Amino acid sequence: MKKLSIMALSALVAVGSIAGYTVAQQKINDKDLLNQAKNYFQPLPKEIPAPSDNPTTKEKVQLGKMLYYDPRLSLSGVISCNTCHNLATYGVDGVETSLGHKFQTGGKNAPTVLNAGFHIAQFWDGRAKTLEDQAKGPVLNPVEMSMPDPNLVIERLKTIEGYVAEFKKAFPNEKDPVNYDNVAKAIAAFERTLVTPSRFDEFLKGNTKALTQKEKEGLKLFMEKGCASCHNGVAIGGTMFQKFGVVKPYPYQDTNDLGRYNVTKNEADKYVYKVPSLRNVTRTYPYFHDGKVWDIREAVKIMGETQLGITLTDDEIDKIVAFLDSTTGKIPEDALKMPVLPPSSPKTPKPRI
Amino acid sequence: MKKLSIMALSALVAVGSIAGYTVAQQKINDKDLLNQAKNYFQPLPKEIPAPSDNPTTKEKVQLGKMLYYDPRLSLSGVISCNTCHNLATYGVDGVETSLGHKFQTGGKNAPTVLNAGFHIAQFWDGRAKTLEDQAKGPVLNPVEMSMPDPNLVIERLKTIEGYVAEFKKAFPNEKDPVNYDNVAKAIAAFERTLVTPSRFDEFLKGNTKALTQKEKEGLKLFMEKGCASCHNGVAIGGTMFQKFGVVKPYPYQDTNDLGRYNVTKNEADKYVYKVPSLRNVTRTYPYFHDGKVWDIREAVKIMGETQLGITLTDDEIDKIVAFLDSTTGKIPEDALKMPVLPPSSPKTPKPRI
Repeated sequence: MKKLSIMALSALVAVGSIAGYTVAQQKINDKDLLNQAKNYFQPLPKEIPAPSDNPTTKEKVQLGKMLYYDPRLSLSGVISCNTCHNLATYGVDGVETSLGHKFQTGGKNAPTVLNAGFHIAQFWDGRAKTLEDQAKGPVLNPVEMSMPDPNLVIERLKTIEGYVAEFKKAFPNEKDPVNYDNVAKAIAAFERTLVTPSRFDEFLKGNTKALTQKEKEGLKLFMEKGCASCHNGVAIGGTMFQKFGVVKPYPYQDTNDLGRYNVTKNEADKYVYKVPSLRNVTRTYPYFHDGKVWDIREAVKIMGETQLGITLTDDEIDKIVAFLDSTTGKIPEDALKMPVLPPSSPKTPKPRI
Repeated sequence: MKKLSIMALSALVAVGSIAGYTVAQQKINDKDLLNQAKNYFQPLPKEIPAPSDNPTTKEKVQLGKMLYYDPRLSLSGVISCNTCHNLATYGVDGVETSLGHKFQTGGKNAPTVLNAGFHIAQFWDGRAKTLEDQAKGPVLNPVEMSMPDPNLVIERLKTIEGYVAEFKKAFPNEKDPVNYDNVAKAIAAFERTLVTPSRFDEFLKGNTKALTQKEKEGLKLFMEKGCASCHNGVAIGGTMFQKFGVVKPYPYQDTNDLGRYNVTKNEADKYVYKVPSLRNVTRTYPYFHDGKVWDIREAVKIMGETQLGITLTDDEIDKIVAFLDSTTGKIPEDALKMPVLPPSSPKTPKPRI
């Protein structure tokens, strides 16, 4: 028995050596791959750059985090930003379309909040230019947090002593700091801290050992097959709008969902969506603007067919998925530490349905 | 103008001195108060004692925390334990009755999960003996997390690689550790870490300076008026069941809500509920089993009238509320650190409505 095992082991080692040799023959030149990658991608900075009218400060980030986690920003009092952009699940809710006020379903899959500030615009159709603009939307959307108007948001916050103090700290030179613009500014400041450095960033910074052989092969395919023509930049996406179904229609497309056309009213923008960031994408299922595809492998296959007109082999898909998984990063610990929220007062307008 | 201000200030100081003198005359003997308090209350231990069949371990607590924050324990995939027992708001959701599956409303106000393991039983009617029993309820309740049966819970978890590994670590000697009993055991183990030491505990341990004069007066009233006859023990409540409306009916009582009668079918248990813990009570509004009362002052007033047959003065209510607020404790930091949840696999049963 022992003898047989040793023999089997020797055989394995032999095969291993042969395989090792084969791999060595096909081995990617790390330096070349890195240089090629640098043409498409950049490593994450520590924080997302802030606009000049909303510089990121510690106080603003702290307030923004409180607001992000506070369900009192919704009419019902139970839905917070984190309900649909759950940081415990990489900034998404893991459902096709979010369940908002009275369990109404949203029209689009909730995109991850992680690294979102790197995008050229917010929402799938890019209707908000900045994180600040975006933050104001869901709070007032009747199928999401369903606040009837900004006044109720402000009334809730102004009757919570703890918040009044936090707004004063975050916006120290303002006479009346508790206002809807500042709610959005604080949330945006918090969101600018949500960057997720990964092994892929180590690679981009020059440590070619940070990726496995398979991941490197995936990265090579990702660039050579054409994926990186759209999914590029610091967020591996988010830099442009593109038609979904360039070569072949997307099989699940709802023809009533016109995408960016709703913003521009430009015929050419029908079925055009923002190219999503692929950072952490293996964690941000289900996929696409409608959340119809759950398996990352199917998503990659569909992208090849609809956008590039190619049929990727199972092996190629495997490798590309391995590369994508290497972008799974570390969510900042501070962001995951839930704040203890300041209590309402008897004057605070009550939650209602 | 300046002269007048200075005169007004002098007058205030004079009144202040007189008030100070009066207070000094009534000054409570700290030692006597502490001894009296020790007859009713005990300071919080570091952790809630565990039953012999579910000893608390680090691995179990870690798994339990993941499950506590995981919305995949609900059919819809968006409701977690933390949705209704939100640790950011002292273990409650701040609404009359929770909003569960399809925004259906629960029958009772969600009690805080903090310090809950000290109670003689769980739920307002005490229908669950232990935290383990309790944890199994909401997951399967059609108006709460709405899982059709434990099998779906287990199917979800067994298809999540990360969970299988965590269950193995938490229950190392079991052949098939991913089962519904262990889900409940892990959640209960996590909940046994949810103790909230406060200034009142410092006082009970002998530091009589930990409470302000007003809080001490409130504590004295709390004991002398009779509140502590029911709200006592380590959790300042949770040690017994009592009729709500001993002397006078509770003004908002829904006569169809029979309380503990539903468990015992004993006539005498109609409108009987578990006496809630008053730790952190100024943060766990709205009050009572139905969540009908939002103002802690009104709640204290009602308790005096319905349970003790006394009308507390505004000043007495003030002081009692000040004492109650001194029990607002520190939520364990580890519990507030949201875990990053392991990803679903394509085999994981999908969320649905």
